[in-house]
Amino acid sequence: MIILKLGGSVITRKEAEKPTINPENLARIAREISLSSYQQLIIVHGAGSFGHPFARKYGIGDKISDLKDLQHKMQGFSITQEHVRQLNLKVTEYLRKNGVNAVSLQPSSFIKTENKRIKGADLSIIKNYLDLNFTPVLYGDVVLDSDDSIKMAVLSGDQLIQYLALNLKPERVILATDVDGIYDKDPKKHKDAHLLEVVSSKDPLQIGEAETVDVTGGMGGKVFELLQLADEGIESEIINANRIDIIKNVLNGDKVKGTRIKGIKKELRK
Amino acid sequence: MIILKLGGSVITRKEAEKPTINPENLARIAREISLSSYQQLIIVHGAGSFGHPFARKYGIGDKISDLKDLQHKMQGFSITQEHVRQLNLKVTEYLRKNGVNAVSLQPSSFIKTENKRIKGADLSIIKNYLDLNFTPVLYGDVVLDSDDSIKMAVLSGDQLIQYLALNLKPERVILATDVDGIYDKDPKKHKDAHLLEVVSSKDPLQIGEAETVDVTGGMGGKVFELLQLADEGIESEIINANRIDIIKNVLNGDKVKGTRIKGIKKELRK
Repeated sequence: MIILKLGGSVITRKEAEKPTINPENLARIAREISLSSYQQLIIVHGAGSFGHPFARKYGIGDKISDLKDLQHKMQGFSITQEHVRQLNLKVTEYLRKNGVNAVSLQPSSFIKTENKRIKGADLSIIKNYLDLNFTPVLYGDVVLDSDDSIKMAVLSGDQLIQYLALNLKPERVILATDVDGIYDKDPKKHKDAHLLEVVSSKDPLQIGEAETVDVTGGMGGKVFELLQLADEGIESEIINANRIDIIKNVLNGDKVKGTRIKGIKKELRK
Repeated sequence: MIILKLGGSVITRKEAEKPTINPENLARIAREISLSSYQQLIIVHGAGSFGHPFARKYGIGDKISDLKDLQHKMQGFSITQEHVRQLNLKVTEYLRKNGVNAVSLQPSSFIKTENKRIKGADLSIIKNYLDLNFTPVLYGDVVLDSDDSIKMAVLSGDQLIQYLALNLKPERVILATDVDGIYDKDPKKHKDAHLLEVVSSKDPLQIGEAETVDVTGGMGGKVFELLQLADEGIESEIINANRIDIIKNVLNGDKVKGTRIKGIKKELRK
């Protein structure tokens, strides 16, 4: 089993004012997936310009101040859910038209969070789809939260892959992003920045402060989730999906450019 | 709590060659719902021209003959799921734009069937949405079936409302269709056909043969589901959603034209 995350910045135009897909990337990636060979595949995609602007505008996941604010956030919940479903429909359409038997699984219909973290979800249906050789497609969504002060939360694609990986124990977790991986310094600021081929949870990563590795921008949250996976012994790989054929190659098991987040089981550590 | 079913023939153009919504009906019904007052509302809609033609073409729910047939049906599953999601997106969009806080719940992501009947689904999330005053919107979909000979099944909106009603015990179940209700004879053939204001499960209904009441066309399946509900003491009403203001009036509790399927608890019968 492989869990493949398609970043929102890869399949949508993140800088666009309105929710906009990246049709070239979607078509190419769908084709690459259909051309590769794998046993079982789960796809999780981010929300990009279909999710974040709405979730932010309505403050989904922020404390609810009063009834008016609750109503405002509920409206935002409906709007955000509608747009991420729009994107998901596009993704499965591209996959299906390229011969991938994609089935959508809408997170907000079976996953809830507790203080913004998934608190248990029945994943048996995902296994059933996989057993039939379907390719389940999940996505970053808005969900109900049992914490009464927020009631609703954003469920990121990154949290989703972490949860799925911890519970379904895939052989591989692949994050297709718009960067080559993790660098020792911010490559936009430092010409001598080096791509790290391997990062392990033993390494003294200081997320947020980025003293030893560069985890700026959206990478911080991703690395946080992946290191938790690494702690459980599940390796993951960060690749740049803007590179042509890389998704096909990585699914086929070929060596590609990127960063591996190496797993070291907690109990094995000193 | 009210469960309102919007028939596929009301919100889509069933006779259309391609999946086509009925935008006039959708806009009017969404407005009528937003103008009515109710405590808690669950909406279930049919698939109409977005579901049946595909499910039929690919034989979803029919016995699988061989691997090629399985692959064909899986393709059909993806296509059907895609189209019913398209329709659902339209429905929630119309509702949301009219001020109804609609949230979609995709049946195929949390419901499975056993020999074409729902075999247990976690409905707690629906209650959670209702408690927050969201309006959950479910729909006719394709789902996995545990019967190995068919593997996939069509889950009709009618079966869905029956299951939801049995488990959530709503005060009212309303079926918005494109006919006024159940007649004593087929009104298209008999000029003297009378609309039955009340049908009870005591009555000697002979579904399929339609000797005493007219359950031709799509009405047979509906009445079958509703009589099972009636057996559990849950009343339902069939109304004609093409009549202007009827949805608003029925939600408000006003008397409207239609047929009531009266509940008589099994244990109370002789």
